[in-house]
Amino acid sequence: MERLERIFQFIQEIDKEKFIGRQTYLSDGIRKENDAEHAWHLAVMTILLAGYANEPIDVLKTVTMLLIHDIVEIDAGDTYAYDEDAKRTQSEREERAAERIFGLLPEEDGRALYDLWREFEDQKTPEARFARTMDNLQPMMLNHATDGKAWTEHQVSLDQILKRNVNTGKGSEVLWDYAREHFLRPNLEKGRILPSSGRQKN
Amino acid sequence: MERLERIFQFIQEIDKEKFIGRQTYLSDGIRKENDAEHAWHLAVMTILLAGYANEPIDVLKTVTMLLIHDIVEIDAGDTYAYDEDAKRTQSEREERAAERIFGLLPEEDGRALYDLWREFEDQKTPEARFARTMDNLQPMMLNHATDGKAWTEHQVSLDQILKRNVNTGKGSEVLWDYAREHFLRPNLEKGRILPSSGRQKN
Repeated sequence: MERLERIFQFIQEIDKEKFIGRQTYLSDGIRKENDAEHAWHLAVMTILLAGYANEPIDVLKTVTMLLIHDIVEIDAGDTYAYDEDAKRTQSEREERAAERIFGLLPEEDGRALYDLWREFEDQKTPEARFARTMDNLQPMMLNHATDGKAWTEHQVSLDQILKRNVNTGKGSEVLWDYAREHFLRPNLEKGRILPSSGRQKN
Repeated sequence: MERLERIFQFIQEIDKEKFIGRQTYLSDGIRKENDAEHAWHLAVMTILLAGYANEPIDVLKTVTMLLIHDIVEIDAGDTYAYDEDAKRTQSEREERAAERIFGLLPEEDGRALYDLWREFEDQKTPEARFARTMDNLQPMMLNHATDGKAWTEHQVSLDQILKRNVNTGKGSEVLWDYAREHFLRPNLEKGRILPSSGRQKN
């Protein structure tokens, strides 16, 4: 029973992921997404899109990785992709969070999830690369669905997006091609994504 | 590319699941949960708790079932467990919704998810039974975490809860025992769950 108590302590703790806000607007263009909703969306996407991975992937492993990849943000907060200051301390803050939160679990379970989180961060396996592709494509899809609202608000340029997505094709070239054509190009043509980096903050 | 367009049409459509509210309060006791957050939580629970199933289960199948089990509510809405009027029309409303929403996908994918949704509803396989156990335990855990707030507001009695959970043990006797002991008993003792059905609406 002590084992179950520790598992349920973790299950209750991660409820807090539902309160971690992201920068992406949902498809209504009004409310922004939270981490739990985001992870759910990525998991469903993975199940439907795994066949487009560059290399064969273990679907359950990838889904599990994505379901837990943002849990560290319960302590460390969401770091916006284009906030260079916050990104400098991100890795240390997230490492501490991973140790505390996965440490709530029985040792074996905690270790398994910690390792999976680490694997995602290290980007050295087909599953980690495909998971990152999902993580990058989903907000792009939502930004497109909301007529580029988040891009416009943050005055994001194509250079910034391409730099941020330098590894997106490593999980799936087909999906990265699709995203460039269907999510980026129309918004660039309509001026919602800035063409040059002249207005970048960094 | 047409295949991918249909998949992404579905992926964008199910973003609406994030707007479907449930009756359960999150652990802050203020905001109520939505379907996407709920499905995410159940998927993580399944990965951690599958070993407690009465019968061996296919974890990826169960996770997938839970990730998509509430998608029909995008059209059919959430039906509160103790609202007997809404429950009478629930099945027909959800069937129509399943046909429309899973029908957005390429035929083979749509059929696979429709079948999985149907399997969950029919409750005839170990995966469906365990999925139902997760679906029932999670709000119980959150109700307990919020000092029984939703139970108190709806004046729910133990009879009602036990009737609602007549099948919860069929997925996992161990977890149902745990829930009775850790989530129900303390709230019954503190009067947050009513002891008798004398005040039931039906």
